[in-house]
Parts: sequence; structure tokens; C-alpha cells
Amino acid sequence: MQYPSKLIEDAVNEISQLPGIGKKTALRLVIHLLKQDKESTLHLSEALVNLRTQVKYCKVCHNISDEEVCNICSSHRRDHTVICVVENLPDLMAIENTAQYNGTYHILGGIISPIEGIGPDDLKIDSLIQRIKNRSNEVNEVILALSSTMEGDTTAFYLTKKLKDFDLKVSTIARGIPVGGELEYADEITLGRSILSRTAYLHG
Amino acid sequence: MQYPSKLIEDAVNEISQLPGIGKKTALRLVIHLLKQDKESTLHLSEALVNLRTQVKYCKVCHNISDEEVCNICSSHRRDHTVICVVENLPDLMAIENTAQYNGTYHILGGIISPIEGIGPDDLKIDSLIQRIKNRSNEVNEVILALSSTMEGDTTAFYLTKKLKDFDLKVSTIARGIPVGGELEYADEITLGRSILSRTAYLHG
Repeated sequence: MQYPSKLIEDAVNEISQLPGIGKKTALRLVIHLLKQDKESTLHLSEALVNLRTQVKYCKVCHNISDEEVCNICSSHRRDHTVICVVENLPDLMAIENTAQYNGTYHILGGIISPIEGIGPDDLKIDSLIQRIKNRSNEVNEVILALSSTMEGDTTAFYLTKKLKDFDLKVSTIARGIPVGGELEYADEITLGRSILSRTAYLHG
Repeated sequence: MQYPSKLIEDAVNEISQLPGIGKKTALRLVIHLLKQDKESTLHLSEALVNLRTQVKYCKVCHNISDEEVCNICSSHRRDHTVICVVENLPDLMAIENTAQYNGTYHILGGIISPIEGIGPDDLKIDSLIQRIKNRSNEVNEVILALSSTMEGDTTAFYLTKKLKDFDLKVSTIARGIPVGGELEYADEITLGRSILSRTAYLHG
């Protein structure tokens, strides 16, 4: 495509490198920015630079943090005997938003995927083991909250093997029919698992 | 949503102000940027700042330009007797990409839309009239290349009234069945217009 200005071309090229944004969407965004106040673009740009240059990772759980240790790891209100292992930040945030979990986290930074060339060494697995070793008296449960995909299952399998020598409980989040979901439309594997992993009825 | 870091929150808030990008997509983009080299974010940010602070508008046709007058208006190869009126830059670029038009343009910067509170005074209509007045001997056709919507038709109607005192031809782009389109699936209004505006068969 021919652009009337080098500035537009540069901006479109940079924006369209973001995932899920093509040249046409990038041009639409560029034109939107040109219609807005100059300040809104400067604020956006500043937020991106600050993000990329100032961001820190929690040295305990690898969560993104403003400090050396994130506010979850440093909180006295959280249950430090439980570690929930997640793939990435959005997964952590999704669990936090349920307000059902009060333990700590460990972000792997990915998932074992031979196809994409991601092996155990590319993930923060060693630091998880080290963390449990250092606090072996304290940690008594590791929850694997990984996606229910082949990669997720592979990672879970690898982690359970690595963790089997420690005196702790390793659990995984429940697989089953989503709340509000109808049995009729559930796939057979999920439905089958939901019967095998049935739970006692709670008299509320 | 709770964010683990103020930096993430700021970046997500800024990015999600762009049209068509919600908080979840913004977070996905932020995490993508964090995974990339620091340079890619800095380049993106720089392109945005340069765009917004250095961009110029052609003083003749309001196209975006690196100079005072855009490369279309300053070109001797273009036909300056024809002005094609378009709503915005993407429309201009779409027409340029067809390589079927060799005249000049005039960007209105919007379209008359009472619902959105955009009246004729908010558009570059006066400057179009002025441009034709100043070069009345030179310009002999104005093509209205506006969307085939109520707003587009209103704008076209307003422009034809404004232009009727000048000695020039006012035309509009053809409405009809798209190339490759099947009659069966065309709507009645388009099909009706395509019959009324039929053109002589060109023996090629």
C-alpha cells in the first residue's frame, strides 16, 4: 500500500507488528490518534515506554511487580502454604478475579510445547523447585492451574514427576461442565471426566 | 480488574482507549510487548510520537503530507482539472490503490451527520469552494466519492447545491453490482440503480 507520508507508514508498520493487528486496522488506529488531542498519543507512548523500561518481575513468583517482591508474595494476609502454578499473567489475573483463592502463585512464563520448541528449561520450573526446597516446611500444596490441552497436560505431568519427592500435595483444578453449561452440549471427554471426578453434594 | 503493577494498569488503560480495543486485548498486547525486545516498544512509541508531533496536512487538499503541499497536489503528472472529494484518508488511499484515477483530491475530514452533531461547518467544504473559486478556469470536474449511506447522500446533496453556480461538471462514483458479484444476491435498490445507470457495452 502507498502511504501519503513516511510518518504514517512508520506508525502503521510498527503498530501492525502487534499480534492480531493488520495494516488496515493499524491505519484506522493511526487516523484515530491523529483526530485526538496530541496529549493522548503522548500519554499512550509514555505509558508504553514506562512499561517496558521500568517493569520488574517478582523474584519469588515471577509475577509482574512494581517492587522486588510482588504484593501477593509480600502480603501477610495470603496463605503461603499453597502455591498455584499458572502459565502466564492473564491466568493469574483471571484466578485473582474470582476472589476464591488466597494462596500464592508461581508463573511459569509459558508451557512445555515441543512444536514451538519450548522445553522445561525455558520455563521457571527450577525456580519453583528451589522455592519449595528453601521453604520445604512451609509449602504443603501445589495447585496446577494449567490449560486442559496437550501442552498443559504435558507440563502438568512433568511437574508432578519433579515434585513427587517433596512432602506435599499436588492437585489440579477441576475439569467438568462449566457453571451454566448444559449437559446435552458438553463434549464426551469433559462429561466423562465430570462423572469420574464427581464431588459430594454440599447441603447449603 | 486488579492489575499487579501500576505500569501495566497505565498501559492497559491507554491502549484500551483506542477504538475496537478492550481491556482484555490491551492486556494481551501489553504482555506481547513485555515478551519482545525493549527496542520494539521504543520504536513503536517513537513512531507514535513522531506521527502526532510532526505530521502536516496539505494546505490544498488536507491530505496528510510530509511537506506543506502533498505529493499529489504538487505533482505535475496529475490532472489538476479534476478534484475527487472523499471523506477521509483511507478512502483516498483506497482510490489511489486502484491506479485508475489520476486527478487530485479533497479530503472533507468527515461527513454530514446530524446524529453525531457533524454539520457542514465542521468539514473542509469552505476550503473546497475557495479552492475552486481561486482556480475557476482550471477545475472542470468535481467527483463525489462518498459512501452510499444516508450521511453520504446528504453530504453529496449539500455539495451539489454549493457547487451549482460554478461552471463545472459534478459527478458521483457509479453505484451498481460489484465486480464478481452475482445478481441473485444483490439487494433490490442496488440492482435497480444498476439498471437505471446502465452503460454502453465497450467492445474490447
